[in-house]
Amino acid sequence: MNIIGIISKKRDKKILTKEEIEYFINEYTKGNATDYQAAALLMAIYINGMTKEEITDLTLAMANSGEKLDLSDISDCIVDKHSSGGVGDKITLILMPIIAALGIPVAKMSGRGLGFTGGTADKLESIPGYRVDIPIEEFKQNVKDIGISLITSSMNLAPADKKLYALRDTIACTNNIPLIASSIMSKKIAAGANKILIDITCGNGAFMKDIKQAKELANTMTKIGNLAGREVRCVITSMDQPIGNAIGNSLEIIEAIRALKGDMPDDIKEIILELGIQMIFMSGLTQDLIEAGEMIEEAINSGKAYEKFKELVKKQGGDVNCIENTDMFPKSKHIIPVLADNEGYVKQIDAELIGNISVYLGAGRMRKEDEIDYTSGIVMNMKIGDYVEVGQPLAYIHTNDEKKIEGATKNLQNAFVIESKKAPKPKIILGTIK
Amino acid sequence: MNIIGIISKKRDKKILTKEEIEYFINEYTKGNATDYQAAALLMAIYINGMTKEEITDLTLAMANSGEKLDLSDISDCIVDKHSSGGVGDKITLILMPIIAALGIPVAKMSGRGLGFTGGTADKLESIPGYRVDIPIEEFKQNVKDIGISLITSSMNLAPADKKLYALRDTIACTNNIPLIASSIMSKKIAAGANKILIDITCGNGAFMKDIKQAKELANTMTKIGNLAGREVRCVITSMDQPIGNAIGNSLEIIEAIRALKGDMPDDIKEIILELGIQMIFMSGLTQDLIEAGEMIEEAINSGKAYEKFKELVKKQGGDVNCIENTDMFPKSKHIIPVLADNEGYVKQIDAELIGNISVYLGAGRMRKEDEIDYTSGIVMNMKIGDYVEVGQPLAYIHTNDEKKIEGATKNLQNAFVIESKKAPKPKIILGTIK
Repeated sequence: MNIIGIISKKRDKKILTKEEIEYFINEYTKGNATDYQAAALLMAIYINGMTKEEITDLTLAMANSGEKLDLSDISDCIVDKHSSGGVGDKITLILMPIIAALGIPVAKMSGRGLGFTGGTADKLESIPGYRVDIPIEEFKQNVKDIGISLITSSMNLAPADKKLYALRDTIACTNNIPLIASSIMSKKIAAGANKILIDITCGNGAFMKDIKQAKELANTMTKIGNLAGREVRCVITSMDQPIGNAIGNSLEIIEAIRALKGDMPDDIKEIILELGIQMIFMSGLTQDLIEAGEMIEEAINSGKAYEKFKELVKKQGGDVNCIENTDMFPKSKHIIPVLADNEGYVKQIDAELIGNISVYLGAGRMRKEDEIDYTSGIVMNMKIGDYVEVGQPLAYIHTNDEKKIEGATKNLQNAFVIESKKAPKPKIILGTIK
Repeated sequence: MNIIGIISKKRDKKILTKEEIEYFINEYTKGNATDYQAAALLMAIYINGMTKEEITDLTLAMANSGEKLDLSDISDCIVDKHSSGGVGDKITLILMPIIAALGIPVAKMSGRGLGFTGGTADKLESIPGYRVDIPIEEFKQNVKDIGISLITSSMNLAPADKKLYALRDTIACTNNIPLIASSIMSKKIAAGANKILIDITCGNGAFMKDIKQAKELANTMTKIGNLAGREVRCVITSMDQPIGNAIGNSLEIIEAIRALKGDMPDDIKEIILELGIQMIFMSGLTQDLIEAGEMIEEAINSGKAYEKFKELVKKQGGDVNCIENTDMFPKSKHIIPVLADNEGYVKQIDAELIGNISVYLGAGRMRKEDEIDYTSGIVMNMKIGDYVEVGQPLAYIHTNDEKKIEGATKNLQNAFVIESKKAPKPKIILGTIK
């Protein structure tokens, strides 16, 4: 078995064995296989494909390439949730306290934002005092104590995936089902979950642009999850416009707090219900659809979900006063409405452009080392299907940098397509695959 | 235009423009495109192919990536010759003095050996005093003075090809027509030739193992030569056994000297005639087959070719006494016959194994930095079709290292397949393509 032989096998469209995949990943992690050899193999995988068994072997090899989190002392049923990323995606912040309020343990690591998509860890950090990078033992203890902890990972989880992920970006190998599926699943498996719910965002504000590709990704992930001995369910959600109204870190936290109190836009509600029901099914609490839906409503209406979120914030050092009175969150110096210059129905919104404008305003990062302005971002006032008159606000810009207002305004106007013909509200849940 | 866009185009089986190929090669030569990006592109080319136009653009971009030799002050007709490499291939050493003796200027750079194939530069260096690395001005002056110079290249010719060639080895992208063709042609074009004769060796002792692939390579090279404004002819020659009898540096020089005096094995004669005739056609001396053949015979029989070789050796500092009396070449301490242990006809010879044994004996290099023992090697006593009795020598081992005799003997015996059935002599010239 040798590196060149393994590359040439995939080059010739042959099926790699488990041993060959493990050997390559181990040698690459150790630095014995080079980046250019990995690049050649990734390109051969991209073009020639992989069987579900190969993707599973790749996933497990990457999951086993570094540290692994063992959560078995907390529960034998740890349900994890992953989103493939989007604009204004604050679902984790709302859903996980609901789930924890139902008694299902939540031990979740989240990433930071990069490019046009935000990251849950950054959003949590916009709560003054909230510590996302607590030690693993404290993380586990918090789950034992209050049933929930949300952090960012300080562990060396799936280092082979980290290296390959960075490499893929530079060699035109990002948009590929086997590579995306194995990347997501390897991190989740290393993070200790045995039941994994994946929110596959699909649309112009997501990495998956079309439903066919999203379904293929969903089928691949459920299949490799099963082959790897994990239960996986995928919900495909629309990302043709931002989720809810807020885009930006503390802006999204504030929207999440309102949602936990029962005040949520329709699209958020639909997603929370569908994802929540699937999580309840996986946890075994009930298999009855109506009952599961009622459990979620009850967790919100009783205030238990909101209380659980406050408990979480307090436990991790956050300022609970901000949660109780969201006016206490620091605000941007400038809050500027972006006005419609023609009237009609909002037919289309360029979610990716809106994500990029929010990054430009300081809400996200173009490069890993960029600093975030937690207060900045965008709040939508109109969404697809809404009727707008000339001079009505389409959205509000939140920024501390006066110089950015003009450019952001212009671009935001361009992000909206307004037509005289009535436009339908888009479908939110595009499919559920298990 | 950007690197990732170019990689993704070839990944998606699209045709790259001249500008895109030039941009990539220039950025790679400058170090702005990385080895892993080049590896991804090479793998995409390997799997998805290239049109003849793309291969031509790649060839010219690599040829233009560094210094270029201008031979136009010597002649407007510089005929170059290249061999795709083999075992015992001393054709250049015999053919080029013949061509120079006919008044066609010969300005040829040759490589060093690596792996199981030898290199003309090493063979010339086995002549005591012969300087293969003279300055370019001296090289050109020698051609003007005596009509011939054979050296190794000290110029920075086609540096993009050098980088890609080294990379291909490590990522399973060596055996690919577009990449082989562009690599060979870029070096020849940078070396200043406008007429190029390529000896494509084919068989178990060559990189091209089968005739179909060799013909495809030949067609590709003649076509891209034409597209690049160069006349190219390819002769496909058999490499199912070593060429002639000697393998090893001074051993091959001695065989070449004998050949220049008219004493040459049948296979060498056939190759010299076919390649010589094609070179004469390209030079424009005549287009008549019979006349061209007679010119070659005459150059040998008159002693002019031999004298031209002596003139070359003298001009480049070599000891002419060795040429006049080949007994003066240093010899290996041990010259050991390898005896047949069964009788019959030689049906098959593993030329690659014989090449590797000669490297083991010190005649070649496994790694670039290895030192060569010029005296060592193998002299064949039996070739395909010969009848051999038990105890007759199959070949002779020449070595200065007593410890290597046993292993080399065993392996050499294994390189011969002997059967009772009469075996035909193999065909030498497998095709000529222009």
